Amino acid sequence: MGFSAADAVIPACAVIGIAFAAWQWFLVAKVKVSAYASTGNGGHGRPVFRQEDEEDEDNRIGGESDDEEDGVDGPAAVARCAEIQNAISVGANSFLFTQYKYLAAFTVIFAVVIFLFLGSVHRFSMASQPCQYTKGKMCKPALANAAFTTAAFLLGAVTSVVSGYLGMRIATFANARTTLEARRGIGAAFATAFRSGAVMGFLLSSLGLLVFYIAIKIFGLYYRDDWEGLYESITGYGLGGSSMALFGRVGGGIYTKAADVGADLVGKVERNIPEDDPRNPAVIADNVGDNVGDIAGMGSDLFGSYAESTCAALFVASISSFGADHDFAAVCYPLLISSAGLVVCLATTLFATDFFKVKTVDAVAPALKLQLLISTVLMTVAALVVTFAALPARFTMFDFGEEKQVRNWHLFLCVAIGLWAGLAIGFTTEYFTSNAYSPVRDVADSCRTGAATNVIFGLALGYKSVIVPVLAIAVSIYVSFTLASIYGIAIAALGMLSTVATGLAIDAYGPISDNAGGIAEMAGMSRRIRQRTDALDAAGNTTAAIGKGFAIGSAALVSLALFGAFVSRAGVTVINVLSPKVFAGMLVGGMLPYWFSAMTMKSVGSAALKMVEEVRRQFSTIPGLMEGRATPDYASCVRISTDASLREMMPPGALVLLAPLVTGTFFGVHTLAGLLAGALVSGVQVAISASNSGGAWDNAKKYIEAGASEHAKSLGPKGSEAHKAAVIGDTIGDPLKDTSGPSLNILIKLMAVESLVFAPFFAAHGGLIFK
Amino acid sequence: MGFSAADAVIPACAVIGIAFAAWQWFLVAKVKVSAYASTGNGGHGRPVFRQEDEEDEDNRIGGESDDEEDGVDGPAAVARCAEIQNAISVGANSFLFTQYKYLAAFTVIFAVVIFLFLGSVHRFSMASQPCQYTKGKMCKPALANAAFTTAAFLLGAVTSVVSGYLGMRIATFANARTTLEARRGIGAAFATAFRSGAVMGFLLSSLGLLVFYIAIKIFGLYYRDDWEGLYESITGYGLGGSSMALFGRVGGGIYTKAADVGADLVGKVERNIPEDDPRNPAVIADNVGDNVGDIAGMGSDLFGSYAESTCAALFVASISSFGADHDFAAVCYPLLISSAGLVVCLATTLFATDFFKVKTVDAVAPALKLQLLISTVLMTVAALVVTFAALPARFTMFDFGEEKQVRNWHLFLCVAIGLWAGLAIGFTTEYFTSNAYSPVRDVADSCRTGAATNVIFGLALGYKSVIVPVLAIAVSIYVSFTLASIYGIAIAALGMLSTVATGLAIDAYGPISDNAGGIAEMAGMSRRIRQRTDALDAAGNTTAAIGKGFAIGSAALVSLALFGAFVSRAGVTVINVLSPKVFAGMLVGGMLPYWFSAMTMKSVGSAALKMVEEVRRQFSTIPGLMEGRATPDYASCVRISTDASLREMMPPGALVLLAPLVTGTFFGVHTLAGLLAGALVSGVQVAISASNSGGAWDNAKKYIEAGASEHAKSLGPKGSEAHKAAVIGDTIGDPLKDTSGPSLNILIKLMAVESLVFAPFFAAHGGLIFK
Repeated sequence: MGFSAADAVIPACAVIGIAFAAWQWFLVAKVKVSAYASTGNGGHGRPVFRQEDEEDEDNRIGGESDDEEDGVDGPAAVARCAEIQNAISVGANSFLFTQYKYLAAFTVIFAVVIFLFLGSVHRFSMASQPCQYTKGKMCKPALANAAFTTAAFLLGAVTSVVSGYLGMRIATFANARTTLEARRGIGAAFATAFRSGAVMGFLLSSLGLLVFYIAIKIFGLYYRDDWEGLYESITGYGLGGSSMALFGRVGGGIYTKAADVGADLVGKVERNIPEDDPRNPAVIADNVGDNVGDIAGMGSDLFGSYAESTCAALFVASISSFGADHDFAAVCYPLLISSAGLVVCLATTLFATDFFKVKTVDAVAPALKLQLLISTVLMTVAALVVTFAALPARFTMFDFGEEKQVRNWHLFLCVAIGLWAGLAIGFTTEYFTSNAYSPVRDVADSCRTGAATNVIFGLALGYKSVIVPVLAIAVSIYVSFTLASIYGIAIAALGMLSTVATGLAIDAYGPISDNAGGIAEMAGMSRRIRQRTDALDAAGNTTAAIGKGFAIGSAALVSLALFGAFVSRAGVTVINVLSPKVFAGMLVGGMLPYWFSAMTMKSVGSAALKMVEEVRRQFSTIPGLMEGRATPDYASCVRISTDASLREMMPPGALVLLAPLVTGTFFGVHTLAGLLAGALVSGVQVAISASNSGGAWDNAKKYIEAGASEHAKSLGPKGSEAHKAAVIGDTIGDPLKDTSGPSLNILIKLMAVESLVFAPFFAAHGGLIFK
Repeated sequence: MGFSAADAVIPACAVIGIAFAAWQWFLVAKVKVSAYASTGNGGHGRPVFRQEDEEDEDNRIGGESDDEEDGVDGPAAVARCAEIQNAISVGANSFLFTQYKYLAAFTVIFAVVIFLFLGSVHRFSMASQPCQYTKGKMCKPALANAAFTTAAFLLGAVTSVVSGYLGMRIATFANARTTLEARRGIGAAFATAFRSGAVMGFLLSSLGLLVFYIAIKIFGLYYRDDWEGLYESITGYGLGGSSMALFGRVGGGIYTKAADVGADLVGKVERNIPEDDPRNPAVIADNVGDNVGDIAGMGSDLFGSYAESTCAALFVASISSFGADHDFAAVCYPLLISSAGLVVCLATTLFATDFFKVKTVDAVAPALKLQLLISTVLMTVAALVVTFAALPARFTMFDFGEEKQVRNWHLFLCVAIGLWAGLAIGFTTEYFTSNAYSPVRDVADSCRTGAATNVIFGLALGYKSVIVPVLAIAVSIYVSFTLASIYGIAIAALGMLSTVATGLAIDAYGPISDNAGGIAEMAGMSRRIRQRTDALDAAGNTTAAIGKGFAIGSAALVSLALFGAFVSRAGVTVINVLSPKVFAGMLVGGMLPYWFSAMTMKSVGSAALKMVEEVRRQFSTIPGLMEGRATPDYASCVRISTDASLREMMPPGALVLLAPLVTGTFFGVHTLAGLLAGALVSGVQVAISASNSGGAWDNAKKYIEAGASEHAKSLGPKGSEAHKAAVIGDTIGDPLKDTSGPSLNILIKLMAVESLVFAPFFAAHGGLIFK
């Protein structure tokens, strides 16, 4: 595969991915929401109440007559669905645009900081400089690198924001459509929710790949054969993507949990009205939260991982024999792997939507799990093909000042180990958070003796769930690091992320079906419809936990790759634990995830308290609200969540962004390296345990509520003492699994990529207090 | 100060410490328990109901008439106190002796393992070998080192067990005496509790010092001028002490929390009877738990830290210029610092018991805090004197194969920074766990919205409380490591531990007063007496948290010193984070505290469940138990706690002991070094946050119960919704603060000291899978 082949394959795969996303969107858009509402009929000749072959299944669950459904799920309900969808969409739009104003200000300031810091490396000189790695050659001036890094940063930030925004648009487009399709059966509803997730997954990963490719080509016009400078500047792209993801995850996470906890504390506890009851003023804010936190935030997060691992891999490749030989196809290996991933995910998606259609409730969770397995198997084969096509048989990789002999099949092993470690993490997460297995059932059982034992067992479960993922990550690191040094880790990370389109589809499926359930409740749909959307949601709940497992697993590999690239770029060959500055840095780094979690958890608490006050105020001042005769002021709750989350996202954001900058500037590269290593080692554990404890509590509660077994029935029903204890656990888990846990992924990645971008400055001027 | 001076000073100080302990015991023993009971009068002419000058204070709190007290607190109550004290003492004795049987078996097996592993280093050859550090000289055979290390291990194990046992004896001797003295006033009761703590503190630290000194002298008879071999063998002493401490902490921790949680869940929640009600069958087991967990476990723990940091310091000194010059006084510097510490603590104790007597309830907590401050100030001065008297002005220290130039005042700075970092950690812990400050009050306030917000705020508090201690430890490490390499860290650790006699006195005070309160309740003493013992206990609760803060802070320094000694002994000069095997080790090491905590928390849960069943059984099968007409079968609850804790302590114990052994044997020294560093960096954070979250929940509950301010009253009284939420938080905190948190101290120390002891084996034969 020569120069032209890579240039053909990468954009072609990206375009195929975008086209596939467009096709899926087209299929979802065929479900009409407003048309139902305006015409008042079943819409465009589709038999709304036609029972599909899952009829029996439905009857087993529902058991109501069709007559009743007709009355409840008719045109009026459709109109309400459209109305609610619109309210959620407007709320999410309003939050994101307000957030983007803040982010724009931040981005401009940070862009200036990047330019000034990097420009000062050679005192803003316009003169060319000797290359750092290619001895005897001249490279572009540091000032140019500063300018292009800044440009790449801005590009990354914009792409990240666009990714998050598109994800939110798709999700708010799909939620009511899923609800309405639930009238046709579980299969149709599942297909709608999953296809919408796929739109997001393919759009984001294709867009990320395409923008990256175009940026390399455009930057290349200036840099020509100075690949060191080119791929150094490109790292700004990862920083841009990741810093937006930070605010997206933290801000969105605080938003969604403040609304959720606030709505529950007044609605469920004080007023005794059900979840998603339209009388609850915070109910729209709660549903908006799913879209801005779990969808937009997660989209930015995974996009960031993807961009960062590619940056790390390209940077290391450029200073290795690929770069010295100017072998573009070989340098582009990471992009080719991602391209192959898009095609693999496309085929995988068809397994869920076309080859094996979901027809019963019980088939939803296995269909989602099968996606993980199929994509992993197919991608293993694809990686084998790409590796032998794109890479020379033998080459050398930069290894902290040494040259490491690598063979092409070594890199295949790196991709494969990343892929399969991801699968192992995914299945472990499922085991610990799905109520189909004993861990969650034990937690549910511990609710018998009250909330305290529930919390103790849930925390212990989270701690225990760390073992297998960490071993999987450690083995991946050991193997890929040994085979191909830092490059191997970056490739393992990309391997884990190569099926990201499928991963995102599965992840997005969760909040979309959650929203669909909320809309069904608010629109007053029949019990049968709600049972169908609840079943979709229950499966989504576990996949959300799996997605978080993947996200943290890949974040660990990505940040280690970035860490290695940072150390390489700073010209350091050894980071010695037996050095005071490294060890002190490690200890403080290990503390940062705790500090950060303390901030975000406290933020959720305070924001939720504000929400509680507003909801209470509305219930006591709006006459007829409890009786359903008056409409609550949804917008003011949306505003409160928006304001609180934007204000509260600043301090944790500042902590993450300033920690590497301050450490590198005042204490130098070695302490900073210690800081990053410590944050990584400690953050991974906190993130996994927090996500899984939270997921387990959530599903333990759902297990009791569903009452699907004798054991579950003995703990229930809703409102029993055991159920109350389970609700307490679920509420505690909310900020753990949806705010602090996932934000920690970004903490460890962002600190590493920021260090990499600022590495030239730290190497030149860092260590004002001690080097 | 020559050879003979050190030989005079060290044993003299140890003997003074033991004499002081004996004197304090004599004062405590003057309070007669059985005499009261048998003679039925006030006993030996002391006016039992004489009101001291704290009369007004008491009346403000109590407000009952003396007549009422006479009836309740008379001879019958005294007889009951003696009876209860006896029951607790018998229970504690029975648990410890059963535990010792298990430990004896373990110790014999592990001693054989040590001997075989170390003996195999040179294939059990009896021939002398070239010294590792002193080039050109011959040292004793490895087989001799194996034999002496094994002997030191046995000695350390026995000393640790004796320390724990003596602590328990003193505490069970003092508890009822404190209750009875409470009749004479708060001052007398405080003096009794504090003096008893001092007996334990001085006995343990003097004994540790004396045994250490004698061991060196006896081992020296064989080793003569082979100081490398001598101080290498002595490290076995630390391993022996620490492995007993592990089982003491874990077994005792499970015991005490199983009894506590079990007693509360049936007694308080189901049967609605107060804490420490004599009708509760688990009440004796609960009080036994204080003595075997908090007293015996903590005594062994701190004794272990003390022994280990001395071992690390002596080992490094022996391979530095002190060793090369055979300067005994200089080598003995760590022992001289500890000796000075004994004298300083003696003076400090007098401030609490003689110079400024506690007269009012409000004076208790400040008196305890003042102890910390006084001992730190005095010790700083003493360290200055010892440093200039014992050390040459300039010398060199072993620094991973290099020689580091050190001056005597550098070592003084190391002691001082350890001391003051300890104080900073103590005061930070107090700030976050005492209900005199806003953090705990905020947690109490969050109980308004239920248990979920209480838990969220409590977890966030624990996370936040990590910041300052970790920064204090990091600064200590940076400064002492920079000044004097690994030796500096060992000396900083010893600095922090030099006032251990005072620390132990303060720590032991807590469980003793807790027990005194329990006895007052069970014996049916008057409300006034119970209020006095409750006030003593409230102060003890915060000092317990402070003690845990010290323990973890010193454990971090100690284990880093041991880590450095291990690496030195294994002949490694660099531990490179940028190496696959080191990084993979770090990641897995960071996971171990989570695995370990999951085990211990789950153990507490299961053991508590067994206790619940037994308590329920007794309430339903013993006629008249609830009405107080029948006596419960306390012994069977003691037996259940004993059996469960001994069985459950095995798996976590095995994890900690096997992890370094397996890693070193199969993956070599570098991976093991990574494992230790990761466990240290991650374990410190988990331990601090767990201890402080638990302490804060406990005191938030007490804050609401005491109702001492308008704010507190608005949350109470006992039984209010907010109080119920607070009780849930307290129960969750129990296993965190009393089992998993403190056990983690030992995890990180024990893994490091075990690596040090086995270092010769790992260096020679380790790394079967990869080196």
